[in-house]
Amino acid sequence: MATKVGIIGATGYNGLELIKILLRHGDARLAYLATRSTQRPLISSVHPSLLGLCNDRAEHIDLDKIAERSDVVFLGVPHTAAMEYVPGLLERNVKVIDLSADYRLKNAKTYQKWYNHEHTDEGNLARAVYGLPEIFADEIREADLVANPGCYPTAVILGAYPLIAEGLVEAAFIADAKSGVTGAGKKLTAATHFPEANESVLPYKVGAHQHSPEMVDVLSQTTGKEVKVEFVPHLVPMDRGIEATMYFTPAGGSDAQDVAATFQKHYAEEPFVRLRGSSFARTRDVSFTNFCDIAWTATDAHVIVSTSIDNLIKGAAGQAVENMNIMFGHERTEGLL
Amino acid sequence: MATKVGIIGATGYNGLELIKILLRHGDARLAYLATRSTQRPLISSVHPSLLGLCNDRAEHIDLDKIAERSDVVFLGVPHTAAMEYVPGLLERNVKVIDLSADYRLKNAKTYQKWYNHEHTDEGNLARAVYGLPEIFADEIREADLVANPGCYPTAVILGAYPLIAEGLVEAAFIADAKSGVTGAGKKLTAATHFPEANESVLPYKVGAHQHSPEMVDVLSQTTGKEVKVEFVPHLVPMDRGIEATMYFTPAGGSDAQDVAATFQKHYAEEPFVRLRGSSFARTRDVSFTNFCDIAWTATDAHVIVSTSIDNLIKGAAGQAVENMNIMFGHERTEGLL
Amino acid sequence: MATKVGIIGATGYNGLELIKILLRHGDARLAYLATRSTQRPLISSVHPSLLGLCNDRAEHIDLDKIAERSDVVFLGVPHTAAMEYVPGLLERNVKVIDLSADYRLKNAKTYQKWYNHEHTDEGNLARAVYGLPEIFADEIREADLVANPGCYPTAVILGAYPLIAEGLVEAAFIADAKSGVTGAGKKLTAATHFPEANESVLPYKVGAHQHSPEMVDVLSQTTGKEVKVEFVPHLVPMDRGIEATMYFTPAGGSDAQDVAATFQKHYAEEPFVRLRGSSFARTRDVSFTNFCDIAWTATDAHVIVSTSIDNLIKGAAGQAVENMNIMFGHERTEGLL
Amino acid sequence: MATKVGIIGATGYNGLELIKILLRHGDARLAYLATRSTQRPLISSVHPSLLGLCNDRAEHIDLDKIAERSDVVFLGVPHTAAMEYVPGLLERNVKVIDLSADYRLKNAKTYQKWYNHEHTDEGNLARAVYGLPEIFADEIREADLVANPGCYPTAVILGAYPLIAEGLVEAAFIADAKSGVTGAGKKLTAATHFPEANESVLPYKVGAHQHSPEMVDVLSQTTGKEVKVEFVPHLVPMDRGIEATMYFTPAGGSDAQDVAATFQKHYAEEPFVRLRGSSFARTRDVSFTNFCDIAWTATDAHVIVSTSIDNLIKGAAGQAVENMNIMFGHERTEGLL
Repeated sequence: MATKVGIIGATGYNGLELIKILLRHGDARLAYLATRSTQRPLISSVHPSLLGLCNDRAEHIDLDKIAERSDVVFLGVPHTAAMEYVPGLLERNVKVIDLSADYRLKNAKTYQKWYNHEHTDEGNLARAVYGLPEIFADEIREADLVANPGCYPTAVILGAYPLIAEGLVEAAFIADAKSGVTGAGKKLTAATHFPEANESVLPYKVGAHQHSPEMVDVLSQTTGKEVKVEFVPHLVPMDRGIEATMYFTPAGGSDAQDVAATFQKHYAEEPFVRLRGSSFARTRDVSFTNFCDIAWTATDAHVIVSTSIDNLIKGAAGQAVENMNIMFGHERTEGLL
Repeated sequence: MATKVGIIGATGYNGLELIKILLRHGDARLAYLATRSTQRPLISSVHPSLLGLCNDRAEHIDLDKIAERSDVVFLGVPHTAAMEYVPGLLERNVKVIDLSADYRLKNAKTYQKWYNHEHTDEGNLARAVYGLPEIFADEIREADLVANPGCYPTAVILGAYPLIAEGLVEAAFIADAKSGVTGAGKKLTAATHFPEANESVLPYKVGAHQHSPEMVDVLSQTTGKEVKVEFVPHLVPMDRGIEATMYFTPAGGSDAQDVAATFQKHYAEEPFVRLRGSSFARTRDVSFTNFCDIAWTATDAHVIVSTSIDNLIKGAAGQAVENMNIMFGHERTEGLL
Repeated sequence: MATKVGIIGATGYNGLELIKILLRHGDARLAYLATRSTQRPLISSVHPSLLGLCNDRAEHIDLDKIAERSDVVFLGVPHTAAMEYVPGLLERNVKVIDLSADYRLKNAKTYQKWYNHEHTDEGNLARAVYGLPEIFADEIREADLVANPGCYPTAVILGAYPLIAEGLVEAAFIADAKSGVTGAGKKLTAATHFPEANESVLPYKVGAHQHSPEMVDVLSQTTGKEVKVEFVPHLVPMDRGIEATMYFTPAGGSDAQDVAATFQKHYAEEPFVRLRGSSFARTRDVSFTNFCDIAWTATDAHVIVSTSIDNLIKGAAGQAVENMNIMFGHERTEGLL
Repeated sequence: MATKVGIIGATGYNGLELIKILLRHGDARLAYLATRSTQRPLISSVHPSLLGLCNDRAEHIDLDKIAERSDVVFLGVPHTAAMEYVPGLLERNVKVIDLSADYRLKNAKTYQKWYNHEHTDEGNLARAVYGLPEIFADEIREADLVANPGCYPTAVILGAYPLIAEGLVEAAFIADAKSGVTGAGKKLTAATHFPEANESVLPYKVGAHQHSPEMVDVLSQTTGKEVKVEFVPHLVPMDRGIEATMYFTPAGGSDAQDVAATFQKHYAEEPFVRLRGSSFARTRDVSFTNFCDIAWTATDAHVIVSTSIDNLIKGAAGQAVENMNIMFGHERTEGLL
């Protein structure tokens, strides 16, 4: 039976990608498309690419109605907004996949520090499962609240986790990431105005991006080591894509073949990780897909790993649907190939 | 009296930028525009932007004629081609500013290793001065052969040199660089075909770029330390610009203020270095200029420095003219502001 | 039963798009992927985005083998190359969908004039059906040779045909088109080198593009009028997308509502035409889809129509698969939504 | 003696370009940089590219002070704002070059219709000279109020005026224009958000752009004919540049050579018009220059003309400085080559 899907935040970029994926999904159907706006625009007037594909008007947020019609609700709203809805949805026995940052950090104080906002639903933090299927598939299967990973953390954790977990590299590393402009969302800002973002590279939030604690938390918790990440993101003039180049210090005499064997061990069966060895690839090779591509080399001083994802797919909506597939027993790749 | 300028390689990207700068230069005039081609096209048909500005036909390479008409010759030809002309030009008492890599490395064996070509003019290697005015202005003033720095080395050395020289950071560091596509030159390649380069980030020559030994040589020679650079360049979808994010390990308890003081000490009087403190800026803020912008921060673990240049100006033709200005006693900034 | 598909020219841009669409197609399977190259590369090394999706090596072109394994063959080769294979394939009772220009013009002399090459398979010209389903669906259903339309003609004919056929506008009109760079194919050229194509608009083949006679032929033949098109294409700095703005002289007192009624009459049931009225839309709203969006307005002097397509999908591979769906009795939209 | 220049609206895109040009200008100096903002930011914090080049803080708008310090004031403010300042500046005997649309139309009613705002300084409309030097140089020389042309009208009028004036073509024509995104200014809008504008072409204000009456007025007034323009602008994903393709109906038997002779007659001595004959060129060939490039061809049915300008230079700030040069007796090209 088709999973009935509600989306809160259907008018944002994540909303658009969720709708596009779910329209192609064989085992799910869109049941409730809600917006935080006071208006109720046609979905296809907000997202002109959906003309003829989605004829609905956006609905207001009414948790009773959403719960009645949906088996699962995706939250595509800004952080701090998601936790307004999560408790009510869980109480109504609807599963929730939250694409915001609100349930990614286990510690409410850390959340408050990085997001400048008190966490108002601390009680559900422990209940939330971090939705990175390559590591947490078993927990996701049982979850009723999934905290969908951030785009940068997805790229960084998938490249770092196996190497740190297996002790091939030291637990402190550098991640230099480059992101397309959709990563900054639909909100108009000076930095994302076309004439400002085009023809330019911009390092930002250097050593101070709110995704750093997410990487540290998840990697430390899963590897049992005290992980430290020096993370610097850069805005580059393209729509989509994240590339993260990571610099690790080898522990012991690990070389490129050890790295290869470790990635093989962890990811050989993973449907959305592609191992490229020393063939470093372009972000465009993962654009509009749910893949995370990984390439690596070993130099005299470092193990260098590059990961690429589409920030809106594997970094957001695609991974969210992947999580839904796991939670509802659908084929893991349904709607995503 | 105006300096008479010859250019060998007038039809490439460096040739175009040299011509544009020199047309605006108050103390120089174009005297001989030569091409390696067997044709003699109109310069303005090769570079349509020069229509009405440059009415000359490209000339064949005749060292006697070039020497007769020129005080200085810029070589905008591929590496391994430059050393065909340098000995003959020097013998004819013409000063040479070589934009290729042929005279940047002091050691012919290192050259051969990285450029896959024997060095055929070893005798002049020692004579060549590395044309980075912020460090070598005195030597440039007396030089008759200047090896104009590579674009990546310009960005990396300017950010690293003061910190390593003053002992604020350790001599081994990481440089993660992003370059616009003009950096790959005018030669048609699959990687620079618009539909392949657009909407994508590509790490390439990871840990193995031919500009690494240039960085190591110059930094080691000038700081007296055994410098090691882990260098990874990335192609990003824009015309121009290089951004290099460098990760240093602090030596002693150096903090952001120490870094600021050191950059101030070295660059306060430099006309083409702009210190931005913790205001990380965009490559577009140096586009079409000869500036190198430097920003920095200190985290718990690293001193992080970001430098930005226009790869075709400070990274090539602009710096070449800056060197000419120094060699011929013109105002350092003439033609470049 | 799944339609078995061969592709000759699997390594080009059309080949890539065909493979991606057919991998998602529920009623077809890839049976033979051939290249004109003397090498037999892995498909996923030529198209890195297909890693993990397509593990085949490209095969040599052996018509016997192709015919044995395939129900239909897509030709994604350059014009003049397609007619080398068509006769042999038809003789072997394989249906052919030719994405080149070789069978689009009915008159061999016209072909020779515009493509500078004699037509060597004149006998099959009459047999070819022009593969624009919105007009020729009935003929396509019975065809064994489909000439898949050019990208520009698709955009122009879909906008012009109903208005001229119904006598709302005069038969001579202007079409000013803008295309992304993939329209120029995978072949490296100076005009499509990233630093030349980026940040620029270029009108080219002004009034002399080889797609003009195709528009004229099809429109004249289907409307019974002597159609004249003044066609000027422009290259714009994006990957994909064609926008054609057409300027018609109204015949009689036709206004925007008449235009709307006419488009409704012709396209209301068409799955891949979306009528936008006066809401002129962006090419990005059809990117990666098989839609043709149409918007229009009427001014004092003109009926102005804008059509948008993805040049690689509705303008090539998508429409080719749409034709296959019709020829083999599959759902018209299979693989294309 | 250097002309003292004030700028009202120094923080916008036109302000930035004016400052950059005037910093290189040998006969002018910046005297007063004002902003409508209530803040007084450093110019170099608003325009980071000016760091080290302009150390001033933006000043408040005080007409007495501006008049005291300036010989001429450039208005780089939005339309309807300019006419707040013009009367006061003229009263204080300062010359004014207005980059807004406020004084371009002679008829206050037409202005009100197209700009949805009453004209509050009708008295000065007749006094304003339209600042297109190729046509109005004599009037500009004597003017104290120059209405600097719009970007689209500059491109269209320069291509159309000679042909219509000399009777080579009919007075009704079509202009299909493509503009980079800076043409929409610095104001944040959904259409100019990078992820919306990138990878797309958008026709907008089809047949209803406020620059149409400006084209019609100027062309009718200067040719004595009743000119009609069907004008459709398109947004394309690049920073700068306008290309206008114009379709004229030949009057009499005029051919490409007649067109060439006419353009020669009108523009042979013009320093900023470059005639390219049938070599249609790219907007990038005029980027960052004050040139207008013109190419043309004649087909069976039309004379087709393509003009290219940099919308921020010849289409705004460059032409404004050109006007200043004429008004103050400087070399016409000073600061602009």
